[in-house]
Amino acid sequence: MIVVLKPNTPSQTENEFIDHLKSLGFNVHISHGIDHTILGLIGDTSRIQPESFIVYDFVDNVMRVQAPYKMASRSFHPDNTSIQIGEGLPNVLPCTIGDGNIVVIAGPCSIESEEQLISIAQEVKKSGARLLRGGAFKPRTSPYSFQGLGSKGIELLLSAKKATGLPVVTELMSITQLDLFNDIDVIQIGARNMQNFDLLKELGGCKNTILLKRGLANTVKELLMSAEYIMAAGNSNVILCERGIRTFDSYTRNTLDLSAVPFLKRESHLPVVVDPSHACGMSWMVPTLAASSLVAGADGIMIEVHNKPECALCDGEQSLTPAQFDTVMSRLKKYAAVEDKTL
Amino acid sequence: MIVVLKPNTPSQTENEFIDHLKSLGFNVHISHGIDHTILGLIGDTSRIQPESFIVYDFVDNVMRVQAPYKMASRSFHPDNTSIQIGEGLPNVLPCTIGDGNIVVIAGPCSIESEEQLISIAQEVKKSGARLLRGGAFKPRTSPYSFQGLGSKGIELLLSAKKATGLPVVTELMSITQLDLFNDIDVIQIGARNMQNFDLLKELGGCKNTILLKRGLANTVKELLMSAEYIMAAGNSNVILCERGIRTFDSYTRNTLDLSAVPFLKRESHLPVVVDPSHACGMSWMVPTLAASSLVAGADGIMIEVHNKPECALCDGEQSLTPAQFDTVMSRLKKYAAVEDKTL
Amino acid sequence: MIVVLKPNTPSQTENEFIDHLKSLGFNVHISHGIDHTILGLIGDTSRIQPESFIVYDFVDNVMRVQAPYKMASRSFHPDNTSIQIGEGLPNVLPCTIGDGNIVVIAGPCSIESEEQLISIAQEVKKSGARLLRGGAFKPRTSPYSFQGLGSKGIELLLSAKKATGLPVVTELMSITQLDLFNDIDVIQIGARNMQNFDLLKELGGCKNTILLKRGLANTVKELLMSAEYIMAAGNSNVILCERGIRTFDSYTRNTLDLSAVPFLKRESHLPVVVDPSHACGMSWMVPTLAASSLVAGADGIMIEVHNKPECALCDGEQSLTPAQFDTVMSRLKKYAAVEDKTL
Amino acid sequence: MIVVLKPNTPSQTENEFIDHLKSLGFNVHISHGIDHTILGLIGDTSRIQPESFIVYDFVDNVMRVQAPYKMASRSFHPDNTSIQIGEGLPNVLPCTIGDGNIVVIAGPCSIESEEQLISIAQEVKKSGARLLRGGAFKPRTSPYSFQGLGSKGIELLLSAKKATGLPVVTELMSITQLDLFNDIDVIQIGARNMQNFDLLKELGGCKNTILLKRGLANTVKELLMSAEYIMAAGNSNVILCERGIRTFDSYTRNTLDLSAVPFLKRESHLPVVVDPSHACGMSWMVPTLAASSLVAGADGIMIEVHNKPECALCDGEQSLTPAQFDTVMSRLKKYAAVEDKTL
Repeated sequence: MIVVLKPNTPSQTENEFIDHLKSLGFNVHISHGIDHTILGLIGDTSRIQPESFIVYDFVDNVMRVQAPYKMASRSFHPDNTSIQIGEGLPNVLPCTIGDGNIVVIAGPCSIESEEQLISIAQEVKKSGARLLRGGAFKPRTSPYSFQGLGSKGIELLLSAKKATGLPVVTELMSITQLDLFNDIDVIQIGARNMQNFDLLKELGGCKNTILLKRGLANTVKELLMSAEYIMAAGNSNVILCERGIRTFDSYTRNTLDLSAVPFLKRESHLPVVVDPSHACGMSWMVPTLAASSLVAGADGIMIEVHNKPECALCDGEQSLTPAQFDTVMSRLKKYAAVEDKTL
Repeated sequence: MIVVLKPNTPSQTENEFIDHLKSLGFNVHISHGIDHTILGLIGDTSRIQPESFIVYDFVDNVMRVQAPYKMASRSFHPDNTSIQIGEGLPNVLPCTIGDGNIVVIAGPCSIESEEQLISIAQEVKKSGARLLRGGAFKPRTSPYSFQGLGSKGIELLLSAKKATGLPVVTELMSITQLDLFNDIDVIQIGARNMQNFDLLKELGGCKNTILLKRGLANTVKELLMSAEYIMAAGNSNVILCERGIRTFDSYTRNTLDLSAVPFLKRESHLPVVVDPSHACGMSWMVPTLAASSLVAGADGIMIEVHNKPECALCDGEQSLTPAQFDTVMSRLKKYAAVEDKTL
Repeated sequence: MIVVLKPNTPSQTENEFIDHLKSLGFNVHISHGIDHTILGLIGDTSRIQPESFIVYDFVDNVMRVQAPYKMASRSFHPDNTSIQIGEGLPNVLPCTIGDGNIVVIAGPCSIESEEQLISIAQEVKKSGARLLRGGAFKPRTSPYSFQGLGSKGIELLLSAKKATGLPVVTELMSITQLDLFNDIDVIQIGARNMQNFDLLKELGGCKNTILLKRGLANTVKELLMSAEYIMAAGNSNVILCERGIRTFDSYTRNTLDLSAVPFLKRESHLPVVVDPSHACGMSWMVPTLAASSLVAGADGIMIEVHNKPECALCDGEQSLTPAQFDTVMSRLKKYAAVEDKTL
Repeated sequence: MIVVLKPNTPSQTENEFIDHLKSLGFNVHISHGIDHTILGLIGDTSRIQPESFIVYDFVDNVMRVQAPYKMASRSFHPDNTSIQIGEGLPNVLPCTIGDGNIVVIAGPCSIESEEQLISIAQEVKKSGARLLRGGAFKPRTSPYSFQGLGSKGIELLLSAKKATGLPVVTELMSITQLDLFNDIDVIQIGARNMQNFDLLKELGGCKNTILLKRGLANTVKELLMSAEYIMAAGNSNVILCERGIRTFDSYTRNTLDLSAVPFLKRESHLPVVVDPSHACGMSWMVPTLAASSLVAGADGIMIEVHNKPECALCDGEQSLTPAQFDTVMSRLKKYAAVEDKTL
């Protein structure tokens, strides 16, 4: 960490401050510039917030040198992380994500009925999806919208898992729901909960894999810090998910920030997936964004599929039909083949 | 709600769609334009999401006519809401916020010790603050930062309430903490929890007043929908809080969106406060933003105050000393007087 | 265009307003909703600004039905536009962009010397680039930075065109420079000039093809309106360029908004290219974004190439070496082949 | 400037780089941290772009210590700048802006006729406005909208100046129009031209005062760099103008970034004004934002006034009537009086 002092800071003030920094346990390198004194702190600065120095009115600026995350960082864990999902469970088709293993996740936005879910599950499985998604607890902007089937939805999802052998992923919205999630292979933490720190800490004690969605207006570094929360609390099976960010333009539901894929894969060892459905919010654009995301290096793509989008209880406008999904999978396989990969 | 169909939509498709809309319970007014057919839905459209029509590939665009919120809307509740805080409690100085009654809230970012808290409380009370704030459960971006004193902090806050008679406000981060908050006059819901819908629904059953902070990148309408969640669940004592939004510039911690104040006061009947401390993140700018916010029509201002900002365990760089806070209060009183108001 | 009146608008006011609309030349369809009256204007509304009705305090909202652009719109020009560049010029290798014809544009950020430029031109030509780029007039945020070689740079660029046969593209910053651009095949209008309306109008009189870059914070619709300016003034040879937008995150120089590619190609008939170099600002990420952009449907990719990036007078950090560029071209050719296309 | 090298950079690479920095004319202070080497450059770094070092793959990060602007910076010019407008001109009422002198600018968005303009000018003068604004050359997003009266509009504006004695301000959109502006007291550079660097350089040779509007998505530092362009080219009479920025919310036309006022007044010595009309785009909100801006420390407020807003050729929805403007002025005078200032 580097602390820059303002011009004309009195020597005494400077010395007292340097003593204070040493008392915090740092070595301090001092560099007197033309106008500014620059102090380099040598030591573990991850517990220090730059703001704690900016409070001094003689401090001009502070810059971190070390990233504030460790466990999520490739500096500390140079090898790619791969996560086994559904391993060792009877009648479940396990899969691996990360380190070259690409997984496509598909299913409806929300679970509506057993028949709907199992029908979609069978179709997407045939097309090559390896995980089934479906929402039981739905985050809805309006209190008057369909909120999901709740625990009944979880039951139906597990029943589809049994019927097809596909591992499942679904969103957890509150700690109080956690005990329903024992057999859920991947717990999704939604964009609006990316900085629900209490929830993240709780997930540290879970054995489930966590799929962590980037918040609407969270930086990629904040995403990594949220992953750090989960890992520091004890659970290292974290998958990062880019799902579009909020910007000034609204011709798409969110703005897919595709650069996040190469950046996160370079900065972190964790698998990175993309949700093009929520990113653009328009079914016609999903195939294009799915292909681009794969080519950008994503370890996985998550696509909403519904057998009758115009009847979907939510997000129908961004859902693909099983036939459209099958077409997308064919296209994704070709692109994966260019890099000698398979889905 | 208005639904615009794409040019050249076949008559049969149009008629089937109109039948579908009628089956949903709406009257439909049909308007044939040069290229587009425009359908006006007459009925209660609050439960309908525009996206549920956009899914049809013959639909070009959908526009809401009625706002999706009701209880929070001034259309439904034309009179200003005023909320009594601390009413009827022994040894507590009650205050009213809203409908011309302005309240200043002050206190440290986090509760660090009994001595620190009571000392600050007494000073801000002397200067005219009517509510004491202090964080017990702190949302920290890094898992390695001070997370707050937790339940111990709540105890200290209640002890300062007893010592000074000031009603108190503090942040609730998780439903699991709720039973500690019985004697907390105002429960603050932080920016990162503005769309924690499960938490909001739970607050509907509380008797406490809720201070709802706008999310980092949430629109003012989303803020009103989150208030709607709480009100629809049974609790109408909601105070809205503007605290800065995330934009492309970072010369301030967040960007204070002052226009939200007049907009919310026109659109809604709920009291509106501003938190200039978190908005700018720099103590030197807080007095200016506090004054501007008051003049913009805010029903309250919330300011972080710490007796020794450079020692604060968090947010020291944006905290005012008690002396600086006193100066701000003098200035605010002058501005309030211009509009014949008092603090 | 749909105009929604506020609840309780007096009949007389409503009738006077309807008469006013008719006097503007529109037919008016009237729809009385539960609370609101909705007026549908039938006629050519492209000259009308929604704001001209919002001024009335009894108007609640206005929604466009027709897009405000025509010449750029696929509704008016359903077939893809392809543009011939360098056609019929002696010793120039012509190329076509659009309608399935993909073009890669490469070259240094700024033209520094004849030797540097010709050397780079020969290398990128060998690798398959079809247009040579190079900046003579540079937009620099600081007045103290290298501003470009100006007219001398244009001479050098034309000399490289002669030496290699590659058509050229370079940025025009001011109308006063226009007469230097007669032999420049493609005139680039930079992001900061996307809404320099006087400049756009002037370009309507040029025979050169215009490469129009999206502004830092301009919507895709504003980009189309700026294209409309040029086309309405007489020049229909416009190529749209996505180059990243400004958002709240700054881990990349700009945020590549890849969704713009499929959206623009659907909404407009004009060719669409992507500049991944300026989008991410980091050479290591350019190959990935270039590939993703091609797969997203871009008609062209523009990449900065410099033989010695660490010595570049500007934008060295995002430039590829000729060898790196060659590797990217190989990769792009493989991806193009998946869709049966060539570069 | 501080350059941070990546961990494990070989000594030889480090030494060669340090030699390179010395060859650029800097002294270099070397600080070896736990993982990173930190280099402090001592010397004038204003001509160096951080990106020119980031190009090296062994460089991790670069941080400026000195601001990249000088002439606009308060460090170089500690005293407030005040600018005399209309000084020494016969029959013109001069005024001063800056250093405690507050000026209100008012007038229509566009000049429509002599009668309209003089009528508005007389009314706003009566209410206390000191400068008259009116647009002759209008930046319109659509080529089909009214583009302004052009040179005829300039004539009418000068004629209103003669009739009332009010100095005038109007927007210049292109260098080619400059010779019409000899008698225009203040030349406005619009938001879309804030980074039209060629235009800014040209203004360095003008004797007119320049009112420089912040771009839709330009940082406050970029605004200062654009002011630097004008000042470095020879014209130090620059007034900075905050007019709202583009964000994710669109309930107002732009988002007024009021914090820019205290920040710019602290960072720079130049006068700072606010345009609340373009910021919110809604006449009902303008009075509130005008008052808040004054209280935030603005040296001036620019307000659009039209005698018949519903007939205005542009921006009617944000214009005040002369009567409404008079009410705003009364309010502003009261707020100014709180700080012992006058308008």
